[in-house]
Amino acid sequence: MKGAFITFEGCEGAGKSTQIRLLAEYLSKNKIPYTVTREPGGTKISESIREIILDGKNTAMTDECEALLYAAARVQHLADTVKPALDRGEIVLCDRYIFSSFAYQGYGRGLDMTFLKEINRYAMEKFMPDLTLFLDLPAVNAFARKHGADKNDRIEQAGEAFHNRVYNGYKSLLNEYRENILPVDCSGTKFETNEKIIQILRSRGLIS
Amino acid sequence: MKGAFITFEGCEGAGKSTQIRLLAEYLSKNKIPYTVTREPGGTKISESIREIILDGKNTAMTDECEALLYAAARVQHLADTVKPALDRGEIVLCDRYIFSSFAYQGYGRGLDMTFLKEINRYAMEKFMPDLTLFLDLPAVNAFARKHGADKNDRIEQAGEAFHNRVYNGYKSLLNEYRENILPVDCSGTKFETNEKIIQILRSRGLIS
Repeated sequence: MKGAFITFEGCEGAGKSTQIRLLAEYLSKNKIPYTVTREPGGTKISESIREIILDGKNTAMTDECEALLYAAARVQHLADTVKPALDRGEIVLCDRYIFSSFAYQGYGRGLDMTFLKEINRYAMEKFMPDLTLFLDLPAVNAFARKHGADKNDRIEQAGEAFHNRVYNGYKSLLNEYRENILPVDCSGTKFETNEKIIQILRSRGLIS
Repeated sequence: MKGAFITFEGCEGAGKSTQIRLLAEYLSKNKIPYTVTREPGGTKISESIREIILDGKNTAMTDECEALLYAAARVQHLADTVKPALDRGEIVLCDRYIFSSFAYQGYGRGLDMTFLKEINRYAMEKFMPDLTLFLDLPAVNAFARKHGADKNDRIEQAGEAFHNRVYNGYKSLLNEYRENILPVDCSGTKFETNEKIIQILRSRGLIS
């Protein structure tokens, strides 16, 4: 059994963790081995980095520092969690990956895309996902769904204009990386979205 | 009064902190305003990153993760500590900077130099030091001077072959960056070395 690296992208509150949970339940029922993980984090060193990134008290963090910390957490997470799971032939479901960096640090913060690609070069060259699913829900709807932004989370507190730039950034990335990213319409119930995702994975031969 | 950014490089135990302290005493006596700082660290966020990098328990940290963490700590330290001090017209004495990344992560760990330059692009473009002093003492002598490597420090524990590569890497960097890095012979007493450093700064017009 060949493993597959499937990443989930979207704005805050788009339903990534719900969809990952529902897909994991489906894989369990069908006895398909899988690993669920998330970025930043998913491993001891990366969770320590995550704490620094998201700490609401670190308001003076520069955009470059933030981007480099995400990239650092990413390479460690690949080595500790993603690669071993793929080597075991598992389906890896990962909450956020490089396109989050491009959307949030690139389109959201305004950092140079060449810089972002270079600091993520290892991930892009060695661990490009087999498929990235973009849960397509505008930031404003997403925040409404989760009843507002988390006051202790530095990224969620970045403001509506920021999160709109992120959403529009994702839309641009869908064009630029049309081979890699597939949008998923999330206007239905979570079960309808789950069904769409299962159909996509089947049609791509990623699950049987 | 114009500030100046002066960085100190060298192997573990080469005497950087001693020389920085002696130079700081000289600046104090001569009423020249200065700031002493270090990498990684020197500011709250960067000290948190430093803890992750140096933690002896993080033995499985990948080389790429380490390099990205150093670069992250660096940009934050520039914003929080170095830039404000330079803006106040102070002499900034910094223990380690980009050439440490090139020597340790490049020559020591074997990471691609293009990658290291790119992840340090912000620092190299905006904050190239006015002068870098390389305290020239081979790694083996340096460790002998400090009575062996610190058991709780992941970098110091990297082994003799690693630290020899780092020393030889510095020698290559002296050639490549001869405009930026000046070697300082450390074979004499610490006071003789301090005197040499003061003469260099005077001859360069960095102090009066």
